[in-house]
Amino acid sequence: MSRCVPGRHGTVTDDEKQIRELVGRWAAAVHEGRMDDVLADHAADILMFDVPPPDDGVRGIDAYRQTWPEFFAWQASGARFELVELQVTTGEDVAFAVALLRCGTDEEYALHPGRRLRLTLGLRREGGRWVVAHEHHSFPLP
Amino acid sequence: MSRCVPGRHGTVTDDEKQIRELVGRWAAAVHEGRMDDVLADHAADILMFDVPPPDDGVRGIDAYRQTWPEFFAWQASGARFELVELQVTTGEDVAFAVALLRCGTDEEYALHPGRRLRLTLGLRREGGRWVVAHEHHSFPLP
Repeated sequence: MSRCVPGRHGTVTDDEKQIRELVGRWAAAVHEGRMDDVLADHAADILMFDVPPPDDGVRGIDAYRQTWPEFFAWQASGARFELVELQVTTGEDVAFAVALLRCGTDEEYALHPGRRLRLTLGLRREGGRWVVAHEHHSFPLP
Repeated sequence: MSRCVPGRHGTVTDDEKQIRELVGRWAAAVHEGRMDDVLADHAADILMFDVPPPDDGVRGIDAYRQTWPEFFAWQASGARFELVELQVTTGEDVAFAVALLRCGTDEEYALHPGRRLRLTLGLRREGGRWVVAHEHHSFPLP
């Protein structure tokens, strides 16, 4: 196990810190509609399971990019996109992160304060840096 | 990188093979309603984002176990639970797997053949074996 030991036992490793910062930067960029920064740490072959269809996922960075303008336009109407919880499990070259976010308008949160966007990220180390190779976004079905 | 190189470039590593077999065994156990085998390769502290609520996840193996009887009862009415696609990214001690499944009744698939359950698994190596520490299940919102 040596230095590959995942940082899940109370110590925050450098890799965990890097990934927590990456997710924080990405969430801020999403909230502020900054496309370049949304894409900055993502793999060319990303596979995303988005909240809306397609059922079999959004494949590749170009298709991933194309999902954002509609979301940014909706968000500009006054929606939140706020990290509430983030757990990171890191190995030497592969990691995953599990997050909960508030994502919605004040009206939606007035009706359903506990509503959460669930997010899972799969990451790989490429050329010495962490990149997001997979994203899975969902709300529970009512 | 050495032997930690993720098996995503055409070579199937032993770890990838072990994880593919684990996911296949788990999916078969789910389909056949065999609870012990559904739980066999899961971590005590598993965090699952299930298709239904709660929004903030099902936490711990006891809570995870309690989600299955209702699903097994529904499935016994004649639903499928079939792996369609599985991608595995493995490191030395951490891995993630991304899958698409057919999950539903023949009536549902007659209406919507492309309907897919999206599944992401986060895995850790514990005591020399892989265990599932995270599951995220969802259908796209219509």
